[in-house]
Amino acid sequence: MLNAYVLGAVDLPKVDQDLINRRAKVMGPAYRLFYQRPLHLVRGEDVWLYGADGTKYLDVYNNVASVGHSHPHVVHAIADQAGRLCTHTRYLTAEPIDFAERLVASFPSEIGHVMFTNSGSEANDLALRLAFDATGGTGVIISSNAYHGTTHLIAGLSPSLGAGVPAYKNTWYVAPPIDGDGLAFGERITSALKEMQAKGVKPAALLIDSIFTSDGVAAEPAGFLATAFNVMHKAKALVIADEVQPGFGRTGSGMWCFARHGVVPDMVTMGKPMGNGYPIAALALRPEVIANFGMKARYFNTFAGNSVAIAAANAVFDVIENQDLIANSKKVGSAMAEALRQTMGFGVVRAAGLMVAVDIVNQNGAADPERATRLVNQLAQHGVLISTSRKDGSALKIRPPLTFSMAHLDLFLDKLTLCLKNERNGDS
Amino acid sequence: MLNAYVLGAVDLPKVDQDLINRRAKVMGPAYRLFYQRPLHLVRGEDVWLYGADGTKYLDVYNNVASVGHSHPHVVHAIADQAGRLCTHTRYLTAEPIDFAERLVASFPSEIGHVMFTNSGSEANDLALRLAFDATGGTGVIISSNAYHGTTHLIAGLSPSLGAGVPAYKNTWYVAPPIDGDGLAFGERITSALKEMQAKGVKPAALLIDSIFTSDGVAAEPAGFLATAFNVMHKAKALVIADEVQPGFGRTGSGMWCFARHGVVPDMVTMGKPMGNGYPIAALALRPEVIANFGMKARYFNTFAGNSVAIAAANAVFDVIENQDLIANSKKVGSAMAEALRQTMGFGVVRAAGLMVAVDIVNQNGAADPERATRLVNQLAQHGVLISTSRKDGSALKIRPPLTFSMAHLDLFLDKLTLCLKNERNGDS
Repeated sequence: MLNAYVLGAVDLPKVDQDLINRRAKVMGPAYRLFYQRPLHLVRGEDVWLYGADGTKYLDVYNNVASVGHSHPHVVHAIADQAGRLCTHTRYLTAEPIDFAERLVASFPSEIGHVMFTNSGSEANDLALRLAFDATGGTGVIISSNAYHGTTHLIAGLSPSLGAGVPAYKNTWYVAPPIDGDGLAFGERITSALKEMQAKGVKPAALLIDSIFTSDGVAAEPAGFLATAFNVMHKAKALVIADEVQPGFGRTGSGMWCFARHGVVPDMVTMGKPMGNGYPIAALALRPEVIANFGMKARYFNTFAGNSVAIAAANAVFDVIENQDLIANSKKVGSAMAEALRQTMGFGVVRAAGLMVAVDIVNQNGAADPERATRLVNQLAQHGVLISTSRKDGSALKIRPPLTFSMAHLDLFLDKLTLCLKNERNGDS
Repeated sequence: MLNAYVLGAVDLPKVDQDLINRRAKVMGPAYRLFYQRPLHLVRGEDVWLYGADGTKYLDVYNNVASVGHSHPHVVHAIADQAGRLCTHTRYLTAEPIDFAERLVASFPSEIGHVMFTNSGSEANDLALRLAFDATGGTGVIISSNAYHGTTHLIAGLSPSLGAGVPAYKNTWYVAPPIDGDGLAFGERITSALKEMQAKGVKPAALLIDSIFTSDGVAAEPAGFLATAFNVMHKAKALVIADEVQPGFGRTGSGMWCFARHGVVPDMVTMGKPMGNGYPIAALALRPEVIANFGMKARYFNTFAGNSVAIAAANAVFDVIENQDLIANSKKVGSAMAEALRQTMGFGVVRAAGLMVAVDIVNQNGAADPERATRLVNQLAQHGVLISTSRKDGSALKIRPPLTFSMAHLDLFLDKLTLCLKNERNGDS
């Protein structure tokens, strides 16, 4: 994993080292911790996270607590509903229906249904189940460093998890449109489809993160997804827009990132920021995708769309609207991208709203993942949290809660400037 | 689905019919509602659920709100933690480690690790991923009407979802040990393994609900699982005990149902009652299962084991201990089984703690699913909630919150007596 702690690599305070040792023993060898020096956290409020030792961190990374850590409106909604009723969708309750209608209204009119899951992984998994059923196909196209989740099927469609995770049998990979070649992306989809069909595999779906988060962030030119969508539809296959990371206003122009491209997916998956940390995710879809499945099979998921999950998601929607967070994401995100390009002089910044990636290069202009990791860890030591992206980890991934203000941006830029200065002085 | 509402089959109050129509439109055709007349619920407290029309229902069915609906200790833990910090396992926080140790201590010493998921489906899916990796096999044995979850892989291992859901390719089915043939179960596993190996498929795992919830509940004779476990281990395959339904004290003798059989699984999955409705589930496992996987792959699941989920699960553990709910499950469950057999005269009652199934037969002694459905719906009309089990739906499934008291039992038996009397009088 990019930016992971290596057991025993650094001296840590005894209390943290003891915790880490107990953790490795009881949670096993597959769990990882962020940063060369893991962060021991005890509290969160808006864009701030607080360490056990009193350190205050500016959160410029977490996209789950997207309306701010411990947002009082969301916390109140959860507490209130948990004290009244927490039950499932096999009973009739008004709230999931009201909320599903509110959610559907945020999509183009072709998208008519919403189904609830507990995680983005479950939403992508369900989307694929429906795509297999609706098309009769099994071939899936993804980007080459995609991350879509953790179930057996979806981990197999998440090459960013590394070579240790077996790939889904009928996967075709396409290079992400991150190096200014957005318009060529549709051609790569056409080639993948041809190859797939030549091997006798019927296509089912193109599954893509609409902003290519783990591939390095691909935002421009808006519209580059249109050809890819058209090509898939001509092949009678479906397009699943994975909005688990870019959704809910993150990219600063409307609720959903795909809309920037003037396209309408067959299915849209969402998750991370949906309940500001309360586990809830969903699949929104065109009714025709599930018409056949619904006649012969049922869908039930015990916790998914439970009364409290719905209350949390509804409260998040309230906050996005009431605090005008999409406009804030656009304003602060644009200012951030501009400052990184102009004031800070970074060569390549890819951004939409508060989803920002910065390519880090060495003195010869070559991708420099070690330098990126060093910067990320230096920033953490100075109380600022970001991480890395791209297959080689050579881009900074900057993705704060949507309540991030211009003042927070100034603080972030000050700290980044300090780290770059220390780097030039050989203090890194 | 057993006991499902059929759209338009009954006249309902306009407010409910309108809600149901809106629900079908926005949530699509794969969702189902319980009962011939769906229940419109607005509040829950301990063993009681309250309808929008003021009806008070005795909950003798729900195993998620297992320490009672809206339990104040759990609600307080959720509200308190949500107001302080809700973050993920890539930061170091003490609570998931403390809780994982508490959970591991409830297992035999061979089980050393705990990994968190959001749902029982995800836990079973992860268990299979690890079983495939640890054994190099792909063959899976399950019971013939099993339900294990809803991901692509696990839905394919859940024949109770019906023929509309494609089966996982290398599935072998064994008849559940519900008709007094518990000791023959091991022989059926042996046969399945032989068949699998004859077809050149290497075995990976036996995946079983330790109490065979959807197969009709199989409890006696304690010990019948031992042969099955031995046979799997001899074949170098693993055993996964799915404790999503029987776990956390439900079966009245210790936290885990498998322990009744004097066996130790390689992996144990759990979920439904774990957070009393807050989405949290887990996999407990022998360290050797994940040793290889952990060296080459990582596991992260954004919401799973987040700070609030852990607070909820820890509070549920508190309540099970402080209110002595395992002993209560044993006491009230035994009294229930006894009353159903002796006082009520049902021929076959299979039970362990508050997991109880009653076979419903016609005058000739043949399984009578229509009668079972009629009784379930009559009881609902009299304010008592249960459901059905077995492949043909011919058994009553009785499974109240673990706080169910002797007084609640008396009320349940009174209502059941009334429904049986009405049945004899032709009023059903």
